[in-house]
Amino acid sequence: MCQLLAMNCNTPTDICFSFEGFAQRGGLTDQHTDGWGISFFEESACRSFHDTLPAAQSPIAKLIKDYPIKALNVISHIRQATIGAVELKNTQPYQRELWGQQWVFAHNGDLWDYKFTDSSPARPIGTSDSEAVFCDLLNQLRSLNPTTEPDIHSIYNCLKKFSSQARSFGTFNFLLSNGKYIFAHCSTKLCYIVRQAPFHEAHLSDKDISINFSTVTTEDDRVAVIATEPLTDNEEWTHFEKNQLLLFKHGKVLNFE
Amino acid sequence: MCQLLAMNCNTPTDICFSFEGFAQRGGLTDQHTDGWGISFFEESACRSFHDTLPAAQSPIAKLIKDYPIKALNVISHIRQATIGAVELKNTQPYQRELWGQQWVFAHNGDLWDYKFTDSSPARPIGTSDSEAVFCDLLNQLRSLNPTTEPDIHSIYNCLKKFSSQARSFGTFNFLLSNGKYIFAHCSTKLCYIVRQAPFHEAHLSDKDISINFSTVTTEDDRVAVIATEPLTDNEEWTHFEKNQLLLFKHGKVLNFE
Repeated sequence: MCQLLAMNCNTPTDICFSFEGFAQRGGLTDQHTDGWGISFFEESACRSFHDTLPAAQSPIAKLIKDYPIKALNVISHIRQATIGAVELKNTQPYQRELWGQQWVFAHNGDLWDYKFTDSSPARPIGTSDSEAVFCDLLNQLRSLNPTTEPDIHSIYNCLKKFSSQARSFGTFNFLLSNGKYIFAHCSTKLCYIVRQAPFHEAHLSDKDISINFSTVTTEDDRVAVIATEPLTDNEEWTHFEKNQLLLFKHGKVLNFE
Repeated sequence: MCQLLAMNCNTPTDICFSFEGFAQRGGLTDQHTDGWGISFFEESACRSFHDTLPAAQSPIAKLIKDYPIKALNVISHIRQATIGAVELKNTQPYQRELWGQQWVFAHNGDLWDYKFTDSSPARPIGTSDSEAVFCDLLNQLRSLNPTTEPDIHSIYNCLKKFSSQARSFGTFNFLLSNGKYIFAHCSTKLCYIVRQAPFHEAHLSDKDISINFSTVTTEDDRVAVIATEPLTDNEEWTHFEKNQLLLFKHGKVLNFE
């Protein structure tokens, strides 16, 4: 199993505080030691960092904790390998271009006996269930329109239908973004928090570090953080309902259900 | 204009020495200050690092110089912007999946008035001539076979034909890899060196640093380095002929012409 982290904001924000706590779970406070990755969006472009070393020991993870890259949308993943060896090709988040946008995907859970449908153009590079399901998902989205992004309701309905089918193979918690918004689907475990004015102090669950967000924000800022388990121990996180698909845009939650 | 760097080996090798000299050209010994990127292959998977800061100042470039990531194939690019603003989406190398392999592309030169042919599935995210031509090139390759990598001669012939057409728009020096081999095409300026036993000392042109390769290699190692301009001042680099397309595999040069 793995753990997921995402951030969706209305103003470019760095993820250093959340990632500091999250990376602890890659070998210190938890046993997700089989690699990690993080993707930062700048509009529809994206840069990703991956390492097969545990996040708690990786020199690249240290860079991410120290170098404040600001973004509206970020997705991160730490891995405890089940299906697929510990290799770069099986290290999430996965990334593909669709409609002239980068699409980034991270999955938590096992989809036992899931088989890639041999569709195209998106095809798996590695051997994980997660990449196979991502390629199928993207090819389904592309079937809505081969060249141009369709309206958000069509995308939502396509993901909803796809998720209900994929769940029959096992656990399907995922995060998906194209740099404009983040879709988050909960099969078993996922939670989120929206931080906005008045901002308060937050304290990490995994490391004795606090930040007073009121000193680093303006009153118009709004930031949603999504994670497998709450990252702070003095704030109230909202747990997703089972099989819920939420859309996060500009730090707000939109629920089409 | 920009500068290109690639490495192709028969045993996993780090690029720290070559990149140390190359990164100097991103703001110190030359004026390629509009971002940079580097892609390291591990089999058909790939991890890329990009920054819009000059390579000589970037904290990510410092990590690459200090953290010896070993790979059989590496492609790097430093940018002096002409077509397309200084933004992440216009920062090379570009990357797309084809046939279940990552394909990485870096281009030096300007293709004035080049227009994307509006083909699919690969579509540009940014606004550079380089990404537009890369998408067209990949879609051409995919037309050889939509799902499976064809034989290398078919790929070579497709690239040869594509290059002769693209050159009519301007300068088209490029590097292209799928993790198994590197194609290098010279329209105006590109050179390479093959290092093999007996190994000698090499001295960078752009920084007063030397390395004695005989102390860090075995006698079976073979490494080809490709660059816009020679990176060392005490070795003999081979200059490409105009319009030459070479294939590098296991540190060897294969010329199908």
